[in-house]
Amino acid sequence: MQPNQNEKHNENHNENHNENNKQITFAIIGAGSGGRSFAVYLSNCGYKVNLVYRSKKNITRIRKHKIIDSQGEIPGEFKINMVTTSYRRALKGAQAILYVVPASVQSSITKQIAPFLEDGQIIVLNPGRTWGAIETYNLLSKYCPDLEIYVGETQTLLFTCRKQEDYGVNILRIKESIDCCFYPENQNLIVGSFITRIFPQFNMVNDIRITSLNNMGAIIHPAVTLLNAGSILRNEEFFFYQEGISPEITRLIEKIDSERCHIIEALGLEPITFKEWAQTCYKCRSESYYQIFLEIKSYQSIRAPQSLDVRYITEDIPTGLVPLSSLGRYLNISTPTINALIILANTLMKKNFWKIGRTIENIKLPFNYRRSQNFQYMTMDRPKILFE
Amino acid sequence: MQPNQNEKHNENHNENHNENNKQITFAIIGAGSGGRSFAVYLSNCGYKVNLVYRSKKNITRIRKHKIIDSQGEIPGEFKINMVTTSYRRALKGAQAILYVVPASVQSSITKQIAPFLEDGQIIVLNPGRTWGAIETYNLLSKYCPDLEIYVGETQTLLFTCRKQEDYGVNILRIKESIDCCFYPENQNLIVGSFITRIFPQFNMVNDIRITSLNNMGAIIHPAVTLLNAGSILRNEEFFFYQEGISPEITRLIEKIDSERCHIIEALGLEPITFKEWAQTCYKCRSESYYQIFLEIKSYQSIRAPQSLDVRYITEDIPTGLVPLSSLGRYLNISTPTINALIILANTLMKKNFWKIGRTIENIKLPFNYRRSQNFQYMTMDRPKILFE
Repeated sequence: MQPNQNEKHNENHNENHNENNKQITFAIIGAGSGGRSFAVYLSNCGYKVNLVYRSKKNITRIRKHKIIDSQGEIPGEFKINMVTTSYRRALKGAQAILYVVPASVQSSITKQIAPFLEDGQIIVLNPGRTWGAIETYNLLSKYCPDLEIYVGETQTLLFTCRKQEDYGVNILRIKESIDCCFYPENQNLIVGSFITRIFPQFNMVNDIRITSLNNMGAIIHPAVTLLNAGSILRNEEFFFYQEGISPEITRLIEKIDSERCHIIEALGLEPITFKEWAQTCYKCRSESYYQIFLEIKSYQSIRAPQSLDVRYITEDIPTGLVPLSSLGRYLNISTPTINALIILANTLMKKNFWKIGRTIENIKLPFNYRRSQNFQYMTMDRPKILFE
Repeated sequence: MQPNQNEKHNENHNENHNENNKQITFAIIGAGSGGRSFAVYLSNCGYKVNLVYRSKKNITRIRKHKIIDSQGEIPGEFKINMVTTSYRRALKGAQAILYVVPASVQSSITKQIAPFLEDGQIIVLNPGRTWGAIETYNLLSKYCPDLEIYVGETQTLLFTCRKQEDYGVNILRIKESIDCCFYPENQNLIVGSFITRIFPQFNMVNDIRITSLNNMGAIIHPAVTLLNAGSILRNEEFFFYQEGISPEITRLIEKIDSERCHIIEALGLEPITFKEWAQTCYKCRSESYYQIFLEIKSYQSIRAPQSLDVRYITEDIPTGLVPLSSLGRYLNISTPTINALIILANTLMKKNFWKIGRTIENIKLPFNYRRSQNFQYMTMDRPKILFE
């Protein structure tokens, strides 16, 4: 029997200054709010952290002092072993590599780090969005077919957090429980216990479709951003959830969520609605979707983006709404509301997200993706491909 | 040869106090900004005006004093013969009846006035939006088959105007030239000269598809309203065109306009783009759609609506975007952007505009609607129907 969450959490706290932890190195790719939160969390547990930043913007003091100033759930100043742009240096000897970057650049990161990967390293995408782990696994099969690399994804980012200029992070909330899965799923057996010892909030699930298709960012962000496009484009400041969402806009989110759930049902799986997810992640008790958005405390201070060229569009559409629409088309489930948002975003952003995005045509899904039951650990073979 | 616009306009001004005009009565249905502008315009020319109001809101002083206070292009105080809610009283003896109501209620008005119509009366829908005159003509064939009623529509409202509380109107602009057509088109021959003597800005065209399919409100209003839904729903005040439109949103308008023009081209007709229309109506000289919106002076002071339950949605979608989408489907022309807006509006407004709106299934189009040339006056017969 598994220990319950609280016991696990305490166990983890007791390990905070475990000397053994010093022997374990994490490479964190991405030094935005999420990457910094992971760095703080792991440094607090005594692990060695190599932080890779991709943009020189807002990193000066962290780079200079190798310290992250953290507020919120894990307050304090936390030492970082290495702050670098070099994948080679950061990955060398690391047990695990955490991607904390927009899902839309995961494939480009994979291509860049491939030459420096070492046998047995673990990659976790935080989060994978839809099909992140499958995409990464397929790319690695091509770039470094001879290495055994474990690739997993979480269903959402562990933290609700905001960057503090070039020196720190504000960890508004560590989510209670988030799903995690490796791909192919049999790899959970090999690396699942390692990862949940470090992150007791990670709930290992035995089906990659659970982490991939319960992509909540995609359900919320594009709708709210697009329905507020006018104000964003005229540089109005407003609180994204508190002011950007109205009962009418919540209806749209609920519609998108139901289109997503229909797809999951068509696969014969039990969908997790946004409401159920908010209950699990945020302990929400509200009945209506609108009330849920008002209830989630850590959402209250989140400001709207100041441009449409923002992850809420450029990440959530190509790695969220587009794959859902593509899968819906394949399963003959119509997704009119999801499609409507993609169509508007294409024109507003002068992009073709249908083409840039992940689709069943450009992501090689496993041949048994349509199976109606959760993954059974019947085989340790490499997955066969649905479309070649 | 027709006299040019200026000559016609002067001719009309000379008639302002023509004693004969007193013999001609207009019933104006709708006492909003458009209805008041027509009342002022006609009263200024010496015609008798019976004004029908449908809502008691903001009409008190006009009702009490039978005077409309007008600012802008036709300044002054103008006497109205009758201000009433009674269709019976207003229509009695009127030569012409002007509908100045949202197109979405035109059919209900037609049903209500049918018992009081008199042989030979002229109805003009200002504007018809898409298929207004055809819908009205078909309803009258059913409600009063024995009367000869002439039904026409304009392509846009003659005035750019705003209501002044319960006492007046501000006529920001009288458009230079707007298309007008009766249905079936052969009726232009009978009543065209009467109507252009009164409204020299009306340019009689010999094809009802020109006035119906060049529905510019539908191209602009829903897109701008929906992309600003967030701010409208949180009661932010902003100028609809000056602040609600950005280059990105203009791209969307241009896309919708091009979908509409493809439909018109598929009928073998020459479409009028929004840009060409703005050149004709507003003498715009700008090259880009975005600049056009900034250039139109009378747009500058127009404020955004304070709710989504507004004509920009509840009129322009069912009597603009829905018929365009429906016709596109029939002609095998895809209208993804138009459809996207309808889908979003359905959910936001909890309505089914596909069903409420005008479609080729519920409007009986003439059997020759797909003809590729303009109407030829070959027959005076009643039009045969495309779908029964």
